[in-house]
Amino acid sequence: GFYFHYWALFDGHAGSGAAVMASERLHLHICEQLRDLVEILQDPSPPPICLPHDTKTGSADPNQMSYAEDHGEVPNEAVPRFHLEKAVSHESLVIGAIENAFKHMDDQIERERASQHLPGGCCALAAIYLMGKFYVANAGDSRAIIIRNGEIIPMSREFTPETERQRLQFLALLRPELLGKEFTHLEFPRRIQPKELGKKMLYRDQNMNGWAYKKIEEDDLKFPLIFGEGKKARMMATIGVTRGLGDHDLKVFSSNIHIKPFLSCFPEVRVYDLTQYEHCPDDVLVLGTDGLWDVTNDKEVAGVVMEVLTSYEPNDPCRYTMVAQELVVRSRGVLKERGWRLANDKLGSGDDISVFVIPLGGPGNYT
Amino acid sequence: GFYFHYWALFDGHAGSGAAVMASERLHLHICEQLRDLVEILQDPSPPPICLPHDTKTGSADPNQMSYAEDHGEVPNEAVPRFHLEKAVSHESLVIGAIENAFKHMDDQIERERASQHLPGGCCALAAIYLMGKFYVANAGDSRAIIIRNGEIIPMSREFTPETERQRLQFLALLRPELLGKEFTHLEFPRRIQPKELGKKMLYRDQNMNGWAYKKIEEDDLKFPLIFGEGKKARMMATIGVTRGLGDHDLKVFSSNIHIKPFLSCFPEVRVYDLTQYEHCPDDVLVLGTDGLWDVTNDKEVAGVVMEVLTSYEPNDPCRYTMVAQELVVRSRGVLKERGWRLANDKLGSGDDISVFVIPLGGPGNYT
Repeated sequence: GFYFHYWALFDGHAGSGAAVMASERLHLHICEQLRDLVEILQDPSPPPICLPHDTKTGSADPNQMSYAEDHGEVPNEAVPRFHLEKAVSHESLVIGAIENAFKHMDDQIERERASQHLPGGCCALAAIYLMGKFYVANAGDSRAIIIRNGEIIPMSREFTPETERQRLQFLALLRPELLGKEFTHLEFPRRIQPKELGKKMLYRDQNMNGWAYKKIEEDDLKFPLIFGEGKKARMMATIGVTRGLGDHDLKVFSSNIHIKPFLSCFPEVRVYDLTQYEHCPDDVLVLGTDGLWDVTNDKEVAGVVMEVLTSYEPNDPCRYTMVAQELVVRSRGVLKERGWRLANDKLGSGDDISVFVIPLGGPGNYT
Repeated sequence: GFYFHYWALFDGHAGSGAAVMASERLHLHICEQLRDLVEILQDPSPPPICLPHDTKTGSADPNQMSYAEDHGEVPNEAVPRFHLEKAVSHESLVIGAIENAFKHMDDQIERERASQHLPGGCCALAAIYLMGKFYVANAGDSRAIIIRNGEIIPMSREFTPETERQRLQFLALLRPELLGKEFTHLEFPRRIQPKELGKKMLYRDQNMNGWAYKKIEEDDLKFPLIFGEGKKARMMATIGVTRGLGDHDLKVFSSNIHIKPFLSCFPEVRVYDLTQYEHCPDDVLVLGTDGLWDVTNDKEVAGVVMEVLTSYEPNDPCRYTMVAQELVVRSRGVLKERGWRLANDKLGSGDDISVFVIPLGGPGNYT
């Protein structure tokens, strides 16, 4: 077998149940998905496209394996009979395993939400270190960046009504029944008033990135599927994130319209190969919830990381915890007469703030 | 009014009709879309969200306009009544105009394909210079890059079964009737044989970027919607590009399954602001069909551009044409005993090759 390192942030909403359960179980689902791949991942040859009948995934017939090796021949099953056969990397198997682990986690929350009393949902950001590589999986609006030699390397992107607009509009167009006659799949820059019928208004649909004018029709008076801007953007006037775990019971206020069909539990997984670069003790992976990133940009975070790390000895194991603590404290701000204020006098984060600072090199490295 | 500069490449397939018609008409559709925006684009204030009743788009009531200007007040219609109102830029109106022009072009081909005898379809790559900015619109597998001071700036991406896999799989999942019982929306690394039923095989679906094993079921024996790799990747075993104009009659071989629902006529539009940088006569925008890019990468193209340009006087208007010619000649290669060969002895392009080299600065610039 082999082991992996794992860190994860779960930022709950509408109750803590889903977040707590995911924090207790997601790594078990990842374990389960990876367990089937142990032999395949440890074998340097490309993963088999097809596994023998009735065999547990990953445990190919050892006799057949050694036959191939001993005689310099490939077993009949492995002869490429097909003109087109796509090569699949070990890395993409790990990505697939993590993707499916998120799906299984979401399914478990769905199954057990009534008996275990698991209200709400959560964004999930997980970092998995396995065989020399970091896999950063993000479903929601948390964010991960690597700071290496002062340089910022984004390791995730946020999934919100704005960034996923076209996916959501496309689904709404193809499955209009999910909108319950309350919403239109078109986006407008603001609500339309009934008296504006017949006027021309800016809109965009699932195919457009730009805007154009259209004559307002009856159907356009419905509420837009995606509405608002930045942190205020909402899907179906309800939720500001479009990926995550849970939310199976979430409905549009005072309606029977479910939100879940539009939410995706699948993460985007980005890979960082730790072996491709010599890392120093000041190189870190930072994971933070939106409470951090709403008031602190990547550059400011990198600044705090470098400032705090240099004030500790390179082999002091506390230094990374101190960075995380400092990032939280600075993003929260200080209570003044006019509310919580940052050092630059801007408003501090009123949201919950969780941060991991994970060293990539130095004494406690992964080799 | 105002004028715009325009260049476009149309790479036809399955007949030249659609490509020829698009080359004769796309700019007229762009003209038509922009005409409605003339006044709005020339007015430095943000575009109006809503236009007055029964007015031609873009021609607001001049009395009302001057009233607002004269009295330092905004007319009643423009008072922001809404808490949330999204700002829309002039640039995004031009993008929307170009997107809709492609749609109107495609609709025209659909309408006139029978009477005008317009078989086939085409990829379309258009560059529009308007009010200080280049808008590069791409639908298909042509490519545009800017070479500025030796640096390469990508101005498009290719739309193929591989790059658009998830969009196509998502549509197939939601509209399985479009697959005509012949195809599965899942991707497999190769065809599955009936005798492999029950074995485990690698697959990925619309949510996945990685790969995982699944037990092969009856339905998986259908042909995969997306199949093959690189230049050999095909959608429904038929077509290697997933955006473009035309193809309204294209069907899967010896079947009644239409390809068109999966193709998008909408381009991705990228914007380059020419005013943000001082351009020299050696800075160019290169547009090329896949015949060029299949055998010549961005860096090699940049090398040829710089090599040829330095061999001509900076004010010689022929120099850009000579670059384009040289790029075509070098990608075609030279006929040797073992076929058409490039300078590096690799196989030359057997495809059609069209190239534009457009100067961004120097004597004949756009001011």
